[in-house]
Parts: sequence; C-alpha cells; structure tokens
Amino acid sequence: MDLKQIAKDTSKTMISYLTYQAVRTVLSQLSETNPPLALWLHRFSSTEKIQDGEAYIRSLFLEQQELAFRILTVREHIVQEIAEFIPEMVRTGIQQANTDHRRYHLERITQMGSSSLPQSDHPPDSEGKN
Amino acid sequence: MDLKQIAKDTSKTMISYLTYQAVRTVLSQLSETNPPLALWLHRFSSTEKIQDGEAYIRSLFLEQQELAFRILTVREHIVQEIAEFIPEMVRTGIQQANTDHRRYHLERITQMGSSSLPQSDHPPDSEGKN
Repeated sequence: MDLKQIAKDTSKTMISYLTYQAVRTVLSQLSETNPPLALWLHRFSSTEKIQDGEAYIRSLFLEQQELAFRILTVREHIVQEIAEFIPEMVRTGIQQANTDHRRYHLERITQMGSSSLPQSDHPPDSEGKN
Repeated sequence: MDLKQIAKDTSKTMISYLTYQAVRTVLSQLSETNPPLALWLHRFSSTEKIQDGEAYIRSLFLEQQELAFRILTVREHIVQEIAEFIPEMVRTGIQQANTDHRRYHLERITQMGSSSLPQSDHPPDSEGKN
C-alpha cells in the first residue's frame, strides 16, 4: 500500500472538489448581483472541464479573467476556513459508517439464522441511510 | 457561503474517495494472492456503484462479506495514516496552483501587450503543468 501516493492523489482530488465548491459559491453570489454573468458562468462550467479544476481555471482565464481571479480567491478562502476540520470529520465519518455496516450485517445474518425465511430481496441501501 | 455545509460535503466526498482507494488496494493485494477473486472484485467494482462508497459496501456485503469487511478495515487504516497530512497538502497545493495561475496570466497579458502578435491559439493547459 503506497500511502504517500494515496495521500497525494487524495489531496489532488480534494483541490479539484474545493474548486468546484468555489465555482458554486461564485455562481450563487452572481445569481444575486449579476444574473446574466451567472448564466454565462453556469454554461461555461457545465462542461466536463470542471472535473479537472486547474484546466478549468486555465480556460476560464482566457474567457473571463475577473471570474477566474475571483474563483482563485474563493477557493483559497474556503480551504483556509475548513481544512483543519476535515481530518476529524473524515475519520469519525469512516468509523461511524464502518460500525453501522458491521452492525447492519450482523443483524441481517442473525435474522437469517433465527428465522427460516428466505433471504430478503431488499437491497441494503433501502434502510434509509441516505 | 455556507462553510459548514461545504465542510460536510467535502468530507463525504473524501470518504467515498478513500473507499475507492481501499478497493484499489485490496484489488492489488488480491491480484497477487487470489487472481480469480481479484477478477471478481474488479468486475463487481467497475459499475457505477463505487461512486457512492456506502452503497457500494452495502451491496458488497450481500455478495462477498469477507471482502466487504476487508475494505472497511483498509479504509480505516488509510484514513488513520494519511488524514493529518491532508490539510497542509491541500492548502499548499491551492496556494501554489493559485500563484502559478496568476503568474501565467500576467506573463500572457504582458506578452500580448509588448508584442503586436495576435493572441496565441495555444490552450493554457499546453504549458506542461500536468
């Protein structure tokens, strides 16, 4: 297990995700202050480009440099504000989800053993966890 | 800007991404120790299910509980090992990328102003930054 590479790939994914969140934030602000520009940015951003945050910003600089600068500023602000909370949220989130999966699985096999009912066809995602 | 919601969404995205990394790790281990099972897991995982880590694990529990347990263990291990390094990597990554974008843009507009050349058709992602 190459943990160093996993950490690198994870932070790259997170940077792209925060860029997407910065775009959403700017879109939401513009829809109040400048609806035509919001519409333009929405159309520009609904391509697949936004999957790669850096490529997206490079092409935005060629079209609307003010918006590109603004998205850079917003994503820098977002990361300053939330980064320190993420590790604990992710650690706790995984531990909680793992506990839930193990308990759910235990309950399911216990139920299957104690009754003679055939295995339910209900998929486990029907338990209302979303 | 709802920073609390952004933090929540970001950690959810990161949990799904680490689940994907755990699946990749288990796949890589199995390809050494149990190629037929690796092939089975590869086929099971190449659906769209893996986009939602929790739904993926729930359906894996119904098919191959040992593998599901193993992926839970691996993702818990990964998060314990890398979580603390992520904030600094992401912060630095964004600052560095922002600096690069601003410098590249400045160089581009300076060049456009000082020469009478028409604007280059080269897309900015051709600068070899990947």
